Amino acid sequence: MVKLDFSKGNGLIPAIVQDYKTGKVLMLAYINEEAWKKSLETGETHFWSRSRNELWHKGGTSGNVQKIKAIYVDCDNDTVLFQVEQIGGAACHTGYDTCFYRRIKEDGTIEIVGKKIFDPEEVYKK
Amino acid sequence: MVKLDFSKGNGLIPAIVQDYKTGKVLMLAYINEEAWKKSLETGETHFWSRSRNELWHKGGTSGNVQKIKAIYVDCDNDTVLFQVEQIGGAACHTGYDTCFYRRIKEDGTIEIVGKKIFDPEEVYKK
Repeated sequence: MVKLDFSKGNGLIPAIVQDYKTGKVLMLAYINEEAWKKSLETGETHFWSRSRNELWHKGGTSGNVQKIKAIYVDCDNDTVLFQVEQIGGAACHTGYDTCFYRRIKEDGTIEIVGKKIFDPEEVYKK
Repeated sequence: MVKLDFSKGNGLIPAIVQDYKTGKVLMLAYINEEAWKKSLETGETHFWSRSRNELWHKGGTSGNVQKIKAIYVDCDNDTVLFQVEQIGGAACHTGYDTCFYRRIKEDGTIEIVGKKIFDPEEVYKK
């Protein structure tokens, strides 16, 4: 097993999540050693939430988990790439299919290119 | 223009680089404000090298630059995605097409899945 290098980023390294079928990049989040082990053990992505400061099972509450289809590690062992099946079709809390739903055009303006899958006000309401 | 949030990672945010034709994820590196501006100005990826602690024009010496075809920003404005044309066909200093040339198999062993484009000993020799 590859030994990941968690030393550079205060115990966190970035994990890129990509749709295993379309190749679309869905999101980037961070893993620590615990999140890495949990992801390997369960076959579903786990991250370390920098804002909540806790282990985060992506989709654990909503059911929109990410089923890991393949894992790659980069040349420096300090970034991983998860290819996943995104259950529910939306990776982003905004309701878009991908967190990268905004394209910066050459004139600096923004174009919305993502696909809206759900209405976050509906889904996250109390 | 989107204002990127450089506050969380000591002035650095991750930039994912993806081949604009194949969708293959090529590498991840970091940008600061200067590298971001240079990338926008020149249309070629610039990063901040954490090991050399300097601005890094990817491929500036070898000519194997990355021509930016599209830029996306994530929902939190703290990660960018560059879709590029990789001149020379190899993004990784190891000579592979992608830095993610190793797949971690389910039994924990490693499978080389990248395509070797050049011999680094040949290219980087003095």
